[in-house]
Amino acid sequence: MRNIKIILEYDGAGYSGWQIQKNTSQTIQQKVQDVLTSINKTQVKVIGAGRTDKGVHAYGQTANFNLDVPIPVARIPRALNRLLPEDIVCRSAEEVEEDFHARYDAKGKKYRYYILNRKCPSAFKRNYVYHFIHRLDFPKIKKAAKFFEGTHDFNAFQSSGSSVTDTVRTIKSIELQQINQELIIEIVGNGFLYNMVRIIVGTLIEVGMGKIKLADVATIISEGNRKNAGFTVPAAGLFLVEVYY
Amino acid sequence: MRNIKIILEYDGAGYSGWQIQKNTSQTIQQKVQDVLTSINKTQVKVIGAGRTDKGVHAYGQTANFNLDVPIPVARIPRALNRLLPEDIVCRSAEEVEEDFHARYDAKGKKYRYYILNRKCPSAFKRNYVYHFIHRLDFPKIKKAAKFFEGTHDFNAFQSSGSSVTDTVRTIKSIELQQINQELIIEIVGNGFLYNMVRIIVGTLIEVGMGKIKLADVATIISEGNRKNAGFTVPAAGLFLVEVYY
Repeated sequence: MRNIKIILEYDGAGYSGWQIQKNTSQTIQQKVQDVLTSINKTQVKVIGAGRTDKGVHAYGQTANFNLDVPIPVARIPRALNRLLPEDIVCRSAEEVEEDFHARYDAKGKKYRYYILNRKCPSAFKRNYVYHFIHRLDFPKIKKAAKFFEGTHDFNAFQSSGSSVTDTVRTIKSIELQQINQELIIEIVGNGFLYNMVRIIVGTLIEVGMGKIKLADVATIISEGNRKNAGFTVPAAGLFLVEVYY
Repeated sequence: MRNIKIILEYDGAGYSGWQIQKNTSQTIQQKVQDVLTSINKTQVKVIGAGRTDKGVHAYGQTANFNLDVPIPVARIPRALNRLLPEDIVCRSAEEVEEDFHARYDAKGKKYRYYILNRKCPSAFKRNYVYHFIHRLDFPKIKKAAKFFEGTHDFNAFQSSGSSVTDTVRTIKSIELQQINQELIIEIVGNGFLYNMVRIIVGTLIEVGMGKIKLADVATIISEGNRKNAGFTVPAAGLFLVEVYY
């Protein structure tokens, strides 16, 4: 049995997220697992690095699985892409150590969030950006973002109901890029709480609207109260860009 | 009755093209006309600058129509965008002379065609690029494109069965841009025959594959025989970018 690591790109718009569910077959994990099982002799179990939510996209989700058929590893992407739906693409495949685990071995992740800040919506990016109509103060958002870098207790930035007890995480960097009326926020961290990226972005937006004061951002982080942080932005603008090992 | 000119952006992937048809309501003209008629007192007739085919997209299709309701022109885009499907967006509106006609008054058009030249398909651009797997010689395509500029009889570059008799057109410019593995071909001309852009691009691709010789391009144009030109590339990569008046 070989252990294979693959990198997947997918458009999450048509799916109920990564993780296999009982009530629907429209999950990315299910589609990939079904295709791999159809190629393999025995049932394949796919392990993903991160459980992206319904509507969230990926440029570089990473997964691993065991394979018993002797298909050359270089041919795996083409074999999968022939059978996968068009909105899920296998970008690469490599053989890894037998104990490699896509989730447990992940050292960090890079996420990207796209905000389209203009009056007119986009016919093409409707599933890939958060269309925000009210004017945002981009330079102010840039300043606010810096407060999140470093090691903090991110308790204020996880959706309620989570059972995670250790809420300390390290954000290595938050980079902001403005391309015309689009704001792209790129966050690299060692781990993320449930909805953490979407709540951080929602907080940055509320700073950009003037609803949250720049001077209050550090306190919102240190006090750790979810109610003081911003709203959870929609899934559509979020992309899992890369997983680090 | 005011005459209103609008600029439309649309994702053509879900439509049977611009023009109203008897067998389907899934045309862009139909959707825009229905929404305008619902706002107006009387039935509205929308005139488009160009009849984009099934699957072809637009950043800047231009249209005009008469309106009898006294809605301020600045409010028209928002009023339309609230009622139109998400994949059709009105970018702007202005009042024009009563004799302005979006199709007859068009002095020229700009089209763009996107080719993704790599092995792996794209999960996100699947409806917006032509995914071409075999290696293309980009510099050679660039040289071939220059032969199309200027005034020529483009008889070899229209789909058979067209009733157009005057096949002389002027291409003002063909610009090629390479961004990573993507080739973007931008063509500006005073008018285009049926499928002309898609056959020119197909010819350029055949040059890039080595199937058509660079030295033969001028002859293919001058001889005017459709059989010597290249294939008609798929609709998905084609965008109507701008209409000139």
